Amino acid sequence: MGVGSIHASLGETMAIVVVDVALKPEILDPQGRAIVGALGRVGLSGVADVRQGKQFVLNIDGDVDEAKLAQIHEIAETLLSNPVIEDFTVQVRP
Amino acid sequence: MGVGSIHASLGETMAIVVVDVALKPEILDPQGRAIVGALGRVGLSGVADVRQGKQFVLNIDGDVDEAKLAQIHEIAETLLSNPVIEDFTVQVRP
Repeated sequence: MGVGSIHASLGETMAIVVVDVALKPEILDPQGRAIVGALGRVGLSGVADVRQGKQFVLNIDGDVDEAKLAQIHEIAETLLSNPVIEDFTVQVRP
Repeated sequence: MGVGSIHASLGETMAIVVVDVALKPEILDPQGRAIVGALGRVGLSGVADVRQGKQFVLNIDGDVDEAKLAQIHEIAETLLSNPVIEDFTVQVRP
């Protein structure tokens, strides 16, 4: 569903891997704070915190095996995120 | 897991709502194309396409009922995304 389904039309033999990158909890997120303020002004109360992160949706030819997943983990750590200030998660979309 | 667990320490009575914002499939994503090129250079082959999106993690006090979820949908459409070029999904993290 959602982002995954956007790419469904590209082919049935493709795997979708999603890498979410978020600021570490101890890192201030001024953009997120600004959104909290804006949400209050437009009438959504009760939002304690907002954190803005990045999402990379990778369309990969063929299956994603263990070796490829390990490679994607390494790339998420070195290329897609800054490990000093960011955490990431890798998930394979069914 | 992942981004959700980052905020778990904020309190057990909080709900986490995640809004993913992605460019519509027909909109070019030059940043994603640049990542495809970079992935090839660092040795990850077989990546057909990369799309870069945004992820907003909202920590909400108390429970998220239907009314609040509808409000979050409206805000995702008006404040967090640009409906001309972007799609979004809203999901409540368990």
